[in-house]
Amino acid sequence: MEASAQIGVTGLAVMGRNLARNFARNGYTVAVHNRSEGRTKSLVEEFGHEGAFVPAWSPQELVAALERPRRLLIMVKAGRATDEVIEEFAPLLEAGDMLIDGGNAHFADTRRRERALRERGIHFVGTGVSGGEEGALHGPSVMPGGSAESYAVLGPMLERISAHVDGDPCCTHIGTDGAGHFVKMVHNGIEYADMQLIAEAYHLLREVGGYAPAEIAETFRRWNEGRLDSYLIEITAEVLAHTDAATGEPFVDVVQDAAEQKGTGRWTVQTALDLGSPVTAIAQATFARVASARAELRAAYRPLPGGGRQELRPHEAERFTRDVEQALYASKVIAYDQGWTMIRDAAAEYGWDIDLGAVARIWRGGCIIRAAFLDRIRAAHAANPDLVSLLAEEEFAAEVSDAQAAWRTVVAGAAQHGIPVPAFSAALASYDTLRSPHLPAALIQGQRDFFGAHTYRRTDRPGSFHTLWAEPGRPEVRTDGGTA
Amino acid sequence: MEASAQIGVTGLAVMGRNLARNFARNGYTVAVHNRSEGRTKSLVEEFGHEGAFVPAWSPQELVAALERPRRLLIMVKAGRATDEVIEEFAPLLEAGDMLIDGGNAHFADTRRRERALRERGIHFVGTGVSGGEEGALHGPSVMPGGSAESYAVLGPMLERISAHVDGDPCCTHIGTDGAGHFVKMVHNGIEYADMQLIAEAYHLLREVGGYAPAEIAETFRRWNEGRLDSYLIEITAEVLAHTDAATGEPFVDVVQDAAEQKGTGRWTVQTALDLGSPVTAIAQATFARVASARAELRAAYRPLPGGGRQELRPHEAERFTRDVEQALYASKVIAYDQGWTMIRDAAAEYGWDIDLGAVARIWRGGCIIRAAFLDRIRAAHAANPDLVSLLAEEEFAAEVSDAQAAWRTVVAGAAQHGIPVPAFSAALASYDTLRSPHLPAALIQGQRDFFGAHTYRRTDRPGSFHTLWAEPGRPEVRTDGGTA
Repeated sequence: MEASAQIGVTGLAVMGRNLARNFARNGYTVAVHNRSEGRTKSLVEEFGHEGAFVPAWSPQELVAALERPRRLLIMVKAGRATDEVIEEFAPLLEAGDMLIDGGNAHFADTRRRERALRERGIHFVGTGVSGGEEGALHGPSVMPGGSAESYAVLGPMLERISAHVDGDPCCTHIGTDGAGHFVKMVHNGIEYADMQLIAEAYHLLREVGGYAPAEIAETFRRWNEGRLDSYLIEITAEVLAHTDAATGEPFVDVVQDAAEQKGTGRWTVQTALDLGSPVTAIAQATFARVASARAELRAAYRPLPGGGRQELRPHEAERFTRDVEQALYASKVIAYDQGWTMIRDAAAEYGWDIDLGAVARIWRGGCIIRAAFLDRIRAAHAANPDLVSLLAEEEFAAEVSDAQAAWRTVVAGAAQHGIPVPAFSAALASYDTLRSPHLPAALIQGQRDFFGAHTYRRTDRPGSFHTLWAEPGRPEVRTDGGTA
Repeated sequence: MEASAQIGVTGLAVMGRNLARNFARNGYTVAVHNRSEGRTKSLVEEFGHEGAFVPAWSPQELVAALERPRRLLIMVKAGRATDEVIEEFAPLLEAGDMLIDGGNAHFADTRRRERALRERGIHFVGTGVSGGEEGALHGPSVMPGGSAESYAVLGPMLERISAHVDGDPCCTHIGTDGAGHFVKMVHNGIEYADMQLIAEAYHLLREVGGYAPAEIAETFRRWNEGRLDSYLIEITAEVLAHTDAATGEPFVDVVQDAAEQKGTGRWTVQTALDLGSPVTAIAQATFARVASARAELRAAYRPLPGGGRQELRPHEAERFTRDVEQALYASKVIAYDQGWTMIRDAAAEYGWDIDLGAVARIWRGGCIIRAAFLDRIRAAHAANPDLVSLLAEEEFAAEVSDAQAAWRTVVAGAAQHGIPVPAFSAALASYDTLRSPHLPAALIQGQRDFFGAHTYRRTDRPGSFHTLWAEPGRPEVRTDGGTA
């Protein structure tokens, strides 16, 4: 077999098939392989006219079809299946070849695999791919990790098949080893938060505002023309406007209110806890899905009383709608800020040189959270590469400051009315926690010192201190060897 | 050496030393060993008069000093040090001997070690020990896992040295393998939530109520005579009443407001995410500590505006104080309910036969969250062994129902005033989530089906469904092979 293909793809389920087609449509010769032959055949039969495909019937044939240095994209299930495919192909490769994992791997697995393959001279390029089947075919957001050398070769190809916004590709080299899969994980965590915030806004408009789903769809359409302009707001309007054909009811009313998940939200929160990143809105969004599916707990709580409700007059409902938009926007800024904080923390922890503005840039298109808003995050980081927080940027700070009175009214009203807004209120609590000059964490340090001699620091001088709580007069001792 | 000791202890730092003394004071002959001899010597020199100690200068001597079946308590740092000590002693033991790990191990490590040692015929008994140094000496709360056979031998000894409440020991066989360390972890998670809730109550009384720390100490003392009666409320009053000798300021005002942690709160939340247990109050408490220590984020947010404040008149402040007590109590019930849900989930996941009432019983004394309140949780589970939630028990439901108006007022007021109450509001959101007849999770399922074809379930008939969102009329297809 002639080594004519610029890229190979193994694993031709829908994501692998569509990425292969995307490469072929962009003029690359693509060698394609699948463990069972049927998928390879049907790809070439159905889509062979779209470009240059080279079907391969064995790992050996696939590798033989690739130009050197070989570029081989693995599109199989994350976990053991990925390890098995790596073990199958790695012995067939040579130093300098590149194995790209485009699945939803945990970044810790990617770090492990990259280290092991680096020792064998092979570049392992863990790559986050966002945008689902449609994105894979028409242009995803692509988040490659791995070595800079591998990006020099692969980058132009990945940029070519990625989504483009204002002429810029939605693909950049994120950082070494697991950085790409890490950033993809945080993308999904932010997505959980964004979806939950939208769901809470809908719930408030329906239960407090008194609007029907079709009316709320119109509101979301209007919001989609302003600063909330985003794919998620757009599809929310579509979902809310949809009427179930079988019953004539609003579609959202015939869908069971038990949310499911695939696990990347969970990974995000678990990782944030290890990093010490306070991603409270993402955490509350993840737990909100979990809670919705706990039928036995919901049955136990159902008889319990809620808050008072009162019908709003039309002009009050309109004002409330404007307040909810402010609350949604402010909460969204906080949720995104939490995501970026987490990426910054991981970069420091793992030694990744991540361009935080570029992450926003490549999420403007192709992925689920794509939004006009992300261009402003890009611009904020471009203007100040040392930006610690979105809230340290003038415009975001001004917007959130303007929104905060309405935001407080909405969160307070939800508490009074008995509408659960876990993510709205977590975002507001995060805002108030971080801007508070004094936190009751000082009391917690005192409690810890009391029951566990865990020591504390003082505001007026350096050192670690412990109070001898059981002794008369409760004397204080310095515990770090310094002079008290 | 004569095999005369009923128990051996290796690792004589403060926890190991105090547990050894506790055994000796209770009439057991205790063989004691430490890697460096100094600690063994000083224990015998300082405390030899308290009971029968047998100093051992090598692992071999320690093992030789033990009656059969041997009982050997390991009190070293969790993690690699524990594995090393196990590997040192296991070859010296015989089938039927018992290795007890009284450190703060992760329950997953305990499961691994128990499995490995079981194959070698040795009982590995992962045991949670709560109560700090003082508890270890005078009576801790003890949570042993491991085999029923090991508890038949060890149980009476551990019960003897444990705290006692109303004549009952604060020790019970929790369940097999890692159940003891799991339950200890959840104890600490609940402790994080309880401390954060108390801290938020203090913050509100200070910032909204306008009270000084010494006045708030009096309030906590009064609360400690009611349904909030607990060790944590008691020591909070002590900490708040304490004046710093160096400055004459309230102690809490000279302590840095950056909370620290040892990691068990983090483990609890990470594990809850794997189990699908919505422990939102514990999560928010853990993140609140994390956030308090993020100096650079706090600096970035500090200039941002807060809510309005207004001074309360004396009778308003008194009323507010009563409302905060209600909010604290209701939030505490939710936080404990979340902890128990998590234990129930783990029992189902790992096949542990955990007596949920007994867990409450052994936490009534010896441990940090000891409280009168726990006897009511014990009683609720004793009355109904199938209790799904504390909120399904009549008295707790009535109390929370009575509290909810005040609870809502406090959470709403905090939002308006700009006081961060992440745990109060997470508890209220959890209450409102679980009692809501309809959740916007239905919209989230619609969004997921729209962008990822993740399917949904319907309220009116069984099966999994997908809407063809891109097709005219948006037809619905059944995806699980059933008849649409």
